[in-house]
Amino acid sequence: MQRKMRMGMVGGGKGAFIGNVHRMAAVLDGRIELVCGAFSSDPAKSREAGRDLYLLPETRCYGSYAEMFAAENQLPLDERMDFVCIVTPNHLHAPVALAALDAGFPVICDKPMTLTADEARTLRAAVKRTGLPFCLTHNYTGYPMVKAARELVRSGRLGAIRRVVVEYPQGWLATRIEAGGQKQASWRTDPKRSGASCCMGDIGTHCENLAEYVTGLKIKELCSDLTTFVSGRELEDDGNVLLRFDNGARGVLFASQIAVGEENPLRLRVYGETGSLDWRQEEPNSLVLLWPDRPREILRTGGAGTGDVVKYNSRLPAGHPEGFIEAFANLYRNFATVLAARLDGTAPEPLAVDFPTVDDGVRGMCFIEAVVASSKAGGKWTPVDGLVV
Amino acid sequence: MQRKMRMGMVGGGKGAFIGNVHRMAAVLDGRIELVCGAFSSDPAKSREAGRDLYLLPETRCYGSYAEMFAAENQLPLDERMDFVCIVTPNHLHAPVALAALDAGFPVICDKPMTLTADEARTLRAAVKRTGLPFCLTHNYTGYPMVKAARELVRSGRLGAIRRVVVEYPQGWLATRIEAGGQKQASWRTDPKRSGASCCMGDIGTHCENLAEYVTGLKIKELCSDLTTFVSGRELEDDGNVLLRFDNGARGVLFASQIAVGEENPLRLRVYGETGSLDWRQEEPNSLVLLWPDRPREILRTGGAGTGDVVKYNSRLPAGHPEGFIEAFANLYRNFATVLAARLDGTAPEPLAVDFPTVDDGVRGMCFIEAVVASSKAGGKWTPVDGLVV
Amino acid sequence: MQRKMRMGMVGGGKGAFIGNVHRMAAVLDGRIELVCGAFSSDPAKSREAGRDLYLLPETRCYGSYAEMFAAENQLPLDERMDFVCIVTPNHLHAPVALAALDAGFPVICDKPMTLTADEARTLRAAVKRTGLPFCLTHNYTGYPMVKAARELVRSGRLGAIRRVVVEYPQGWLATRIEAGGQKQASWRTDPKRSGASCCMGDIGTHCENLAEYVTGLKIKELCSDLTTFVSGRELEDDGNVLLRFDNGARGVLFASQIAVGEENPLRLRVYGETGSLDWRQEEPNSLVLLWPDRPREILRTGGAGTGDVVKYNSRLPAGHPEGFIEAFANLYRNFATVLAARLDGTAPEPLAVDFPTVDDGVRGMCFIEAVVASSKAGGKWTPVDGLVV
Amino acid sequence: MQRKMRMGMVGGGKGAFIGNVHRMAAVLDGRIELVCGAFSSDPAKSREAGRDLYLLPETRCYGSYAEMFAAENQLPLDERMDFVCIVTPNHLHAPVALAALDAGFPVICDKPMTLTADEARTLRAAVKRTGLPFCLTHNYTGYPMVKAARELVRSGRLGAIRRVVVEYPQGWLATRIEAGGQKQASWRTDPKRSGASCCMGDIGTHCENLAEYVTGLKIKELCSDLTTFVSGRELEDDGNVLLRFDNGARGVLFASQIAVGEENPLRLRVYGETGSLDWRQEEPNSLVLLWPDRPREILRTGGAGTGDVVKYNSRLPAGHPEGFIEAFANLYRNFATVLAARLDGTAPEPLAVDFPTVDDGVRGMCFIEAVVASSKAGGKWTPVDGLVV
Repeated sequence: MQRKMRMGMVGGGKGAFIGNVHRMAAVLDGRIELVCGAFSSDPAKSREAGRDLYLLPETRCYGSYAEMFAAENQLPLDERMDFVCIVTPNHLHAPVALAALDAGFPVICDKPMTLTADEARTLRAAVKRTGLPFCLTHNYTGYPMVKAARELVRSGRLGAIRRVVVEYPQGWLATRIEAGGQKQASWRTDPKRSGASCCMGDIGTHCENLAEYVTGLKIKELCSDLTTFVSGRELEDDGNVLLRFDNGARGVLFASQIAVGEENPLRLRVYGETGSLDWRQEEPNSLVLLWPDRPREILRTGGAGTGDVVKYNSRLPAGHPEGFIEAFANLYRNFATVLAARLDGTAPEPLAVDFPTVDDGVRGMCFIEAVVASSKAGGKWTPVDGLVV
Repeated sequence: MQRKMRMGMVGGGKGAFIGNVHRMAAVLDGRIELVCGAFSSDPAKSREAGRDLYLLPETRCYGSYAEMFAAENQLPLDERMDFVCIVTPNHLHAPVALAALDAGFPVICDKPMTLTADEARTLRAAVKRTGLPFCLTHNYTGYPMVKAARELVRSGRLGAIRRVVVEYPQGWLATRIEAGGQKQASWRTDPKRSGASCCMGDIGTHCENLAEYVTGLKIKELCSDLTTFVSGRELEDDGNVLLRFDNGARGVLFASQIAVGEENPLRLRVYGETGSLDWRQEEPNSLVLLWPDRPREILRTGGAGTGDVVKYNSRLPAGHPEGFIEAFANLYRNFATVLAARLDGTAPEPLAVDFPTVDDGVRGMCFIEAVVASSKAGGKWTPVDGLVV
Repeated sequence: MQRKMRMGMVGGGKGAFIGNVHRMAAVLDGRIELVCGAFSSDPAKSREAGRDLYLLPETRCYGSYAEMFAAENQLPLDERMDFVCIVTPNHLHAPVALAALDAGFPVICDKPMTLTADEARTLRAAVKRTGLPFCLTHNYTGYPMVKAARELVRSGRLGAIRRVVVEYPQGWLATRIEAGGQKQASWRTDPKRSGASCCMGDIGTHCENLAEYVTGLKIKELCSDLTTFVSGRELEDDGNVLLRFDNGARGVLFASQIAVGEENPLRLRVYGETGSLDWRQEEPNSLVLLWPDRPREILRTGGAGTGDVVKYNSRLPAGHPEGFIEAFANLYRNFATVLAARLDGTAPEPLAVDFPTVDDGVRGMCFIEAVVASSKAGGKWTPVDGLVV
Repeated sequence: MQRKMRMGMVGGGKGAFIGNVHRMAAVLDGRIELVCGAFSSDPAKSREAGRDLYLLPETRCYGSYAEMFAAENQLPLDERMDFVCIVTPNHLHAPVALAALDAGFPVICDKPMTLTADEARTLRAAVKRTGLPFCLTHNYTGYPMVKAARELVRSGRLGAIRRVVVEYPQGWLATRIEAGGQKQASWRTDPKRSGASCCMGDIGTHCENLAEYVTGLKIKELCSDLTTFVSGRELEDDGNVLLRFDNGARGVLFASQIAVGEENPLRLRVYGETGSLDWRQEEPNSLVLLWPDRPREILRTGGAGTGDVVKYNSRLPAGHPEGFIEAFANLYRNFATVLAARLDGTAPEPLAVDFPTVDDGVRGMCFIEAVVASSKAGGKWTPVDGLVV
């Protein structure tokens, strides 16, 4: 990838933690630069954020995404932004993404993809119609050892998968911090901006996506129990889910935002007929392999016994910890590589064609709706629609 | 406790792993000696086991438990066994225990207590009627750090408990080893000898007991999904369960015998409103405490910050690992201490009045029946009866 | 081993932590019973300890070791103790052991073996002269995974050993607790009872013994820096040592008693030309193997990939933690097995001929003297004499 | 810091791993851009690297550093590079840095700083003379938890420091890979390009710098044993060092490049009179605190109980792993912040005045020379000169 891709950002103003994460992930490899943004719906705040946070010239700081798409399309091709990154609260994902696609801009969008599954299907239709690349930032699948895990399952070394445990306990919403105006908490606990779910939408979908990405299986049906522990809160802050996969495997998925003291220990365990694996996000550079008849092994980022996929998605020798930003950057790098090839009219590096798509977004929204419906129905086994054909 | 207690064993013949575990746990503290046994229903095998495994004189190796109870009752009081230890497959627990109680012998019995909840209630009635001490070897509650966990919950430092995760994945039954005659597998997978459940009876009950012991809560209702992965097997070898506790707390319990490569990683996590704890059986001498507003802490067996209960249940300075046998020995030591006090007509050391009882056994059987019933009913929320009043 | 061996103890009175450890280790496997003792040089205290701690009849609680040896020799062979266990402070090891050997009793003795290397050589001569079995309780070599480590080195899979790191930081003597009369601290910091070294004698020798046991190499010369950090203390409480082995390997050994907060994390790392190993006493059931060209592996007590030696020295399935007492018990079991075979006139089980001997004791004392001498000489490279031929 | 700083690079051509690391670290925060470079002494290769690796225009890819300094000084101030980053092999550090300073450019330079201590002193004189900022990339001190460790020592909570253990075992030079032309190995094992030491220069200095940074102490004298295990190699690939600090503390430092299977587990343990700490580079977001009288604690990047310094040097919420690049980026961010303030004529943010300087470089070279001299003298205690006044 010899060209530098220009990115415009929607959202990511002051106090929005995730905007800077996207920026760091985007620029890490020196192949993407942030050239413009609509950082706030308030034009003055947008300019201020553009100047202070991103050192952008005022002319490229727009008062709205509509203005940005229009103005950028007036710029010469070698200045114009090449794609849009959407880092707003959930309720804006769909309208912004649809507008971007309509304006001809490829999209990289935060998750969950939309407010509802219907909206997700509409967006999927727009992506198919325009033929523009679309990436959903289920960033945890960017970790080298997650990719190693997927490779391992694909290789057949674990045999048929029988059992999956995926968990994501956090503690940051254990009290009603949204009442104090904490920005991240405020919109996530607000159904108008967050959708039908708080905990499952924010982190449960990461579990769902991670499990399906690594195993290659689909969750066929689920049975859930969602709870709101913090009084005064409208959406659930905790949930436990039983899973059945399309190949007959069973599993457990649980996520919580009231697990006091937990930081971000997303963990995936996959048990097959002939081997198992265990990956933990807080120590992301190790992948533990368990075997029935020989010692367990620890695969390491950059270490012996990993292949091309890991190498392609890591930047340092073994033992030099690669973290959250680097994993996130893999999504950006892969997306930008595919985009650049498209602009160049060449075939992309095959290893780059590996990032979550609009189909993952539809899956995620169907998962959220199923998990909410099952719980409301008192733990009824509920199918997860949206299987992609 | 100045007197040495004499123990007779039922079961524990050659090939029965758990008999020797009970023996080691019993003798570790020098307060109990094994004096007799009915190690097999075949008198010759019983004598052989008594001689070879336990170095007992032939006169104290009996051909049946009935014979043993009768013969021992003929011996002078200062030779006669003081209590019976039952380490047979599940289906014999109740008949042997009832006979022992009828013959006037206190009982220490392996778990699950009986074949059915009804049988468990019958046994409970016998214990109440005879007034004899009864201990059920839910041995994991013997670990010092499990006791520290219970103390912590009791102290209120974690606040009201909101969430419990208890898990027990094993891999040893991932293939049909019972077909090859593996003794442990054979009876556990046989409903006649094991009861209505394999995985939940063998290890799921440990989860249930551990969670209730530490939290002081009761599982009020549950929703389960049990699976038999290994074809040709009659009982389930894997199960996932959603939990609701009597105080409104929610939880997940899962156990598996087909989790390839897993050894014995029983783990309990308890999340309260103001703090959380995490304990893992494979590294049993650490207890991790998580707080909302200060660094996590690691309590250690024998280490600073633990109190009298931990001290009473450990034998070595910090950093000298105490393991499975030592935890098991705490049950024996506590039971024998209570027994000795009873014989001496004194009050037992209060810290010794801490071992699982016949009530725990009834709870366990009710749990098993509920978990089987819920799964059969397609994941219906099912109450766990047998709440002890 | 079908006979039960009878043990007499010297030392181990009230307040002496290690006496009870030896007792537990001795009786764990049901092949040894404690029948008598001289628990204190004060006859009344000896009887009291015998009665209260060990539930022994007064007739077998002696006022002195001399009295015990004489009296036991008067008993019929099938009552008399079979061997002596010595758990006194260091300065008594040699006189008691010599007297025991002279009286015809095999000896199992705590470490370090004597006060001086000369004394050690005298004891070695007595052992050779009498032909009686002698075991020194360097108990850490009793762990199954330590034995697995030795097997691994022997197998050649690590290639020639190049580098050894062995460490043992403790924190319990970080302040002058001996001034308050703490019994363990009092004699260890007293040169008259402890010898020329405190830290190196108490725990440095464990490092030396462990490294030589696992690698099969001998420390040829060393360069040390010993320090007394706590003022008012006569002996060193901290030391760092550079090592050169007889095959050219290099290493580091360090031990400390002032490493605040450390419990008992003895650790050994061995690096060979083609592989490496890492073992930690506080998580003793794992042995990490490192390879140049494939993932690291974790060998586990009772787990896949271990052989007969591990099996012979463990008692439980994988994942059921075996700890300090079980490792200690392996020394007793092996020693008693050899002893029983000797009495029976048979060849012992070859796997039992695996416990530290009087030769290890001589090595240990030579190590202590070298490490003290090197430090006094300002870090002069000093040979470790006492290489056993 | 509202201005964007422009960086020129010397070294970092194709195959030079560290060039890209510096680039990623520099650009991560969006405050530095790479604008030019002399990536190779071969002009064609320099242009090729500039184009392919860094997407630079040909006009800013120079054939030599001299050419670059001259040409950049002709550019208008608002285009000209603001500082130079030096990522060549060691022997070029001094000449390039001196030329850069002479040309008026601040310098950020890889470690070890020079080939000899004399050269280091010359460079220090030039820095003092020109008054230009100079940063040495001892990157491990950029980790948030390393800074937390330093804060902890400074706070006095650990009491007077008594003991330090710092270690850095690697395995990548366990065989003679330089014979096969591996670029990193080739120059590091070549005294002409690497200096008097391989292992101690490359990673031993990281140990020295880390220990002194965290403790605030200086190594006063040392006693070492260096070894070349791989035959045909001129410089040492392994070394063990005894340390004495200026306050009387003792320590051990060891580093190895032949520790087969080890990746990059730099680790620092500091023991004080009233508390201790333990930090490991491979799990850099945890800092373990050990106390004499209460449970050990785990401080976490972004977690509770850390202060402003940690916050200033981290970018993500707790549990989102920050790795090697982020730590490295802290040096760049701090250096650039100081530089920008200098250009703006303002006082820099005090927390930014925290990066290794030319004085650290002098210390490092004195350490290397002392450690080589001590070993050559057979383990003589050797003072480390170059104490900065």
